[in-house]
Amino acid sequence: MRLLITGGAGFIGARLARALLERGTLAARRIEQIVLTDQVPPRAELLADARVLARTGALLDEVAALRSEAFDGVFHLASAVSGECEADFDLGLRSNLDSTRALLDALRARQERGAPATRLVFSSSVAVFGPDPAVPLPERVADDTLPTPQTSYGTHKLICEHLVADYTRKGYIDGRAARLMTVTVRPGRPNRAASSFFSGIIREPLAGEEAILPVSPEVSHPVSSPQRTVQGLIAVYEASREAFVGRTALNLPALNVTVQQMLDALLAVAGPQARARVRLQRDSAIAGIVANWPQGASAKRAAGLGLLPEANFEDIIRQYIADCAGTPEALKGMA
Amino acid sequence: MRLLITGGAGFIGARLARALLERGTLAARRIEQIVLTDQVPPRAELLADARVLARTGALLDEVAALRSEAFDGVFHLASAVSGECEADFDLGLRSNLDSTRALLDALRARQERGAPATRLVFSSSVAVFGPDPAVPLPERVADDTLPTPQTSYGTHKLICEHLVADYTRKGYIDGRAARLMTVTVRPGRPNRAASSFFSGIIREPLAGEEAILPVSPEVSHPVSSPQRTVQGLIAVYEASREAFVGRTALNLPALNVTVQQMLDALLAVAGPQARARVRLQRDSAIAGIVANWPQGASAKRAAGLGLLPEANFEDIIRQYIADCAGTPEALKGMA
Repeated sequence: MRLLITGGAGFIGARLARALLERGTLAARRIEQIVLTDQVPPRAELLADARVLARTGALLDEVAALRSEAFDGVFHLASAVSGECEADFDLGLRSNLDSTRALLDALRARQERGAPATRLVFSSSVAVFGPDPAVPLPERVADDTLPTPQTSYGTHKLICEHLVADYTRKGYIDGRAARLMTVTVRPGRPNRAASSFFSGIIREPLAGEEAILPVSPEVSHPVSSPQRTVQGLIAVYEASREAFVGRTALNLPALNVTVQQMLDALLAVAGPQARARVRLQRDSAIAGIVANWPQGASAKRAAGLGLLPEANFEDIIRQYIADCAGTPEALKGMA
Repeated sequence: MRLLITGGAGFIGARLARALLERGTLAARRIEQIVLTDQVPPRAELLADARVLARTGALLDEVAALRSEAFDGVFHLASAVSGECEADFDLGLRSNLDSTRALLDALRARQERGAPATRLVFSSSVAVFGPDPAVPLPERVADDTLPTPQTSYGTHKLICEHLVADYTRKGYIDGRAARLMTVTVRPGRPNRAASSFFSGIIREPLAGEEAILPVSPEVSHPVSSPQRTVQGLIAVYEASREAFVGRTALNLPALNVTVQQMLDALLAVAGPQARARVRLQRDSAIAGIVANWPQGASAKRAAGLGLLPEANFEDIIRQYIADCAGTPEALKGMA
């Protein structure tokens, strides 16, 4: 089978590609080729695999070329992120809405020419949820909580969920949307995302650097590890339509943790020296943004697919350390 | 003030224009001009008013011209309807999504050049609601019921609700989305919409013609009169942002009636001869579609704006008869 991963050079995309290459099969079919599209080339380790083909460029441009190609399955992860969409409204619309519609229309065009409907997993986000004055957020957002997004990014994700559902209803694709939780621990450097500290307060201390905690330790948030997130995307791909249940997006599993629990886990796994490198310095702008985020999430439908969150945050930290091969250099250098 | 009504030659658009011209003011400002855009010219009676300007053509083409014009307020009613969207997927996307985005971007461009944010009322629909296997419909859909649309039309309406909310959040427009109930009694001829009979079983008997009832009299549905619908759109326009509460769409008031109650009302208002002209002839295709529609709706936020549904269906029939000037010829001829 031939697979397409959009955003294939990204944090989750690269890990998904690696996991699929290691498995060798998907939905009981042998993986012959994985095409990775992204604005930057994928990692060398992925390109070294003969089954990997890279297409570098804006998805909107790439889709034109993709129209003539047959894919058995697509993981659509490419997206302008929250901060980018807030800074450049047009970029967000183009990257998230226009690109997704062009991709869906390319798949539809193939189906209308007689090809079977392509299976597509769309990576939506917990960012579809937010508090609207008319609709307060529940303590834990569920699969069927009313999404009232408070960012353009969340709005685009929600809109794409519904496009995927409608193209699926019409039989043009076999689409499924899965909402990713905040994935942590992300490697690399801090970025300007308000959620950056959820990784920074673990990653920096492990690498011997100081980290700033901009919110109260009482803040609670639904997180997931990269590994469980990738497992979730694969399980959603492999699920039968009946097991997926309907066409509405589902939440991937969340470990609902407070920042305090994250810090306690850091202490337990890496010791007091590492823990001491986290310094509380409240940033009211970040705290204000985070106050509008869900404090927790449930994932009943994902549980029905056998997907569960990590048992505790310690395991997430250990996974990150193992990913980095445990050396401070790797911890620093991993991108 | 200058107003724009898209879909201004349509059933609701024309009545809204007439109501605004009669009032002469909106939100305490004098109405100087109303621009009506539609694919067909508006009624002669509207064009006869010196304050009315018509622009005939596809909205997507019209919007280019509208970019250079200042509007104080917009009622965005133009839409490809349910049946059209199911028959022609691209037409639906173009008419409902691309046109709305072009309109919103035209308003945004003005705001970004320093003009105040234009107030915009978007006419969404109860069609955003539908039963998904993962999310059964409640007996009455509420403002905050999770929409899981089961048609492209409903999907487009929901997507536009969220675009309007996000452009509003960014300050580009002052947008409000209101979900219209099934409006009855519609004048004119039966059309191919599955909901056509909700008007036909009243309109045809009043005009001395037979009407087919394709569903069981036990079917229940949220309806509203044209008059209350127009009142609702105006009240949503005039509401302060605080009174509207948040940026999520609200339901306009619904009278939740069974078909049996509609027939009883016909008997009460027009007598046994009229009632006898309705013949039950079950159409399983239509019954199947209708079975997926909400059986009722509540409208708590609209009630907060002082909006209420009709007290009973008799009043809706009497309103239709008054609208038609009570003559069978007018009843037949009204379009």
